[in-house]
Amino acid sequence: MKDRPINRPSLDELVKGIDQSNRMMLSRAITIIESKLASDQELGAQLLDEIIPKTGKSIRIGITGVPGVGKSTFIEAFGTYLTTIGKKVTVLTIDPSSTMTKGSILGDKTRMNELSKNPNAFIRPSPSGSSLGGVAQKTRETILLCEAAGYDVIIVETVGVGQSETAVKGMVDFFLLLMLAGGGDELQGIKRGIMEMADALVINKAEGDNIKPSKTAKKDYQNALHLLPAHAGDWTVPVGLCSALEKTGIEEVWNTVMDYQKVTTENGYFQSNRQQQNLKWMHEVIKFQLEQSFYQDPKKKELVRNLEERVAAGELSVRHAVQKLFT
Amino acid sequence: MKDRPINRPSLDELVKGIDQSNRMMLSRAITIIESKLASDQELGAQLLDEIIPKTGKSIRIGITGVPGVGKSTFIEAFGTYLTTIGKKVTVLTIDPSSTMTKGSILGDKTRMNELSKNPNAFIRPSPSGSSLGGVAQKTRETILLCEAAGYDVIIVETVGVGQSETAVKGMVDFFLLLMLAGGGDELQGIKRGIMEMADALVINKAEGDNIKPSKTAKKDYQNALHLLPAHAGDWTVPVGLCSALEKTGIEEVWNTVMDYQKVTTENGYFQSNRQQQNLKWMHEVIKFQLEQSFYQDPKKKELVRNLEERVAAGELSVRHAVQKLFT
Repeated sequence: MKDRPINRPSLDELVKGIDQSNRMMLSRAITIIESKLASDQELGAQLLDEIIPKTGKSIRIGITGVPGVGKSTFIEAFGTYLTTIGKKVTVLTIDPSSTMTKGSILGDKTRMNELSKNPNAFIRPSPSGSSLGGVAQKTRETILLCEAAGYDVIIVETVGVGQSETAVKGMVDFFLLLMLAGGGDELQGIKRGIMEMADALVINKAEGDNIKPSKTAKKDYQNALHLLPAHAGDWTVPVGLCSALEKTGIEEVWNTVMDYQKVTTENGYFQSNRQQQNLKWMHEVIKFQLEQSFYQDPKKKELVRNLEERVAAGELSVRHAVQKLFT
Repeated sequence: MKDRPINRPSLDELVKGIDQSNRMMLSRAITIIESKLASDQELGAQLLDEIIPKTGKSIRIGITGVPGVGKSTFIEAFGTYLTTIGKKVTVLTIDPSSTMTKGSILGDKTRMNELSKNPNAFIRPSPSGSSLGGVAQKTRETILLCEAAGYDVIIVETVGVGQSETAVKGMVDFFLLLMLAGGGDELQGIKRGIMEMADALVINKAEGDNIKPSKTAKKDYQNALHLLPAHAGDWTVPVGLCSALEKTGIEEVWNTVMDYQKVTTENGYFQSNRQQQNLKWMHEVIKFQLEQSFYQDPKKKELVRNLEERVAAGELSVRHAVQKLFT
């Protein structure tokens, strides 16, 4: 591995560091996982093989909600609560927008001021500069690293723009949808599709004058949930109230997560869901790899460019063009 | 080509037959295109190369609408009208459901009794027994064959179940959405997403007592269209009324199609849209081909099965599993 950066720790150092829950070593391991360097990818693969037996013991929680719902305030309150009951918490984020803005929303640590200073909390911004697929892939591996480092609760936040929810749903055990009382049509529209993914709904900002409207909204959402297909894990999706600001209803959210884990572990859904997620993930990576290696092959690249022109012009049939590429 | 079926016509016979617009020869050519036999695929590729210079001269019209909107009655009236003004018309369908039922909705010729007997109309049921992707691929090639056979208007019908609309939108010049006055929430839901794809909306069954509600619906839909992003071809999406039953408003639909072709040909969108469709199609087929050849490789198959178990069980990292598959 000659092109290996000098500052890279060895595999042993990484494994030992993660085993000792060394945050600095965990961070460096994640950087290696995110790296595109061939030597890092080799090292990352070896590392994952080493730590894989120590993974899977956390509860993975996805959290979403439209901008303005108070996600970071909630996660700050929820994460801090979890540390007070002795849990070690990781907060990751799936933020495709960061691939454009080159800076993740969670990169701004002040968003979770208190939690980011908490020794039992580990906050990691979304890797930027790659596709949602790439981000999801790296986030999944980061989850494994954090589990190996002894984190009990992995929180994956999405920015609530729609597409990223599906990615997060595919990597967590429990998917929490944060809502607000009221909200315009657009808000409703965004929620509708995502509501079907939720294992629990929690109405945030249930405080002061907003408590009454929140209770009404709770009833409305409960009715709306009856119209959705039944949960695959024989789980009744509850609707809760909380105020991240006043730190009320936070413990109840955690109890719901625990109930969910109990019920779905007993009926086997929890385990089968993780298995399905792993298989789906594997086949996603296979497809990704197939396209990568095809489109990166310089000979193919040239040929594709050439064929594209003739196909676009309608001179050459697509079937023939593809045959040329595969023979 | 030893395993070639004895009853297959030669390439020359096919080319000549299509050139002479021989319906029987066109049907057999489509059968060859749809066939999975290696010899047929070779013959099909050669055929497409031969006829490709004669393609692209038709106008390709996609027609969709929820079940009950009267699609077949409309296509019967519309297609028959087109033959009366000297056009040769093809009706194809994208019907993923037929892959389950093993029989296409258009297979039942009585659905378009009049048109199916019309010498200037060619109706071809959706190929069954393959994925939507496969069906779309074959339908695209069938369009080319029909164009080479001198058909002026190619109508591609979808069953209006949602997913197939995107496939059809990707292969036609003009996408027509049939609607009804009123309609329940569910109906509205289906329309919302598809409305953005439409180049024109036509409210069918505007007859008798239904004329007033249809006119009201027309206004509503016109307002709804203002909320959607502008058409990429600088085209204002119109809303029309018709009665396929009483054959009113049919000619107006055709005039709209002609207007659209004129406007978008002048501003270049018509041509660039077809080019983009061809490119998108090519890369879809590349992806399809990559996965096919990977998953059909017996050695890979065995390895994948084996790795799936270990990945599902969480024993092996996905990254490592995929590395094993690609080295």
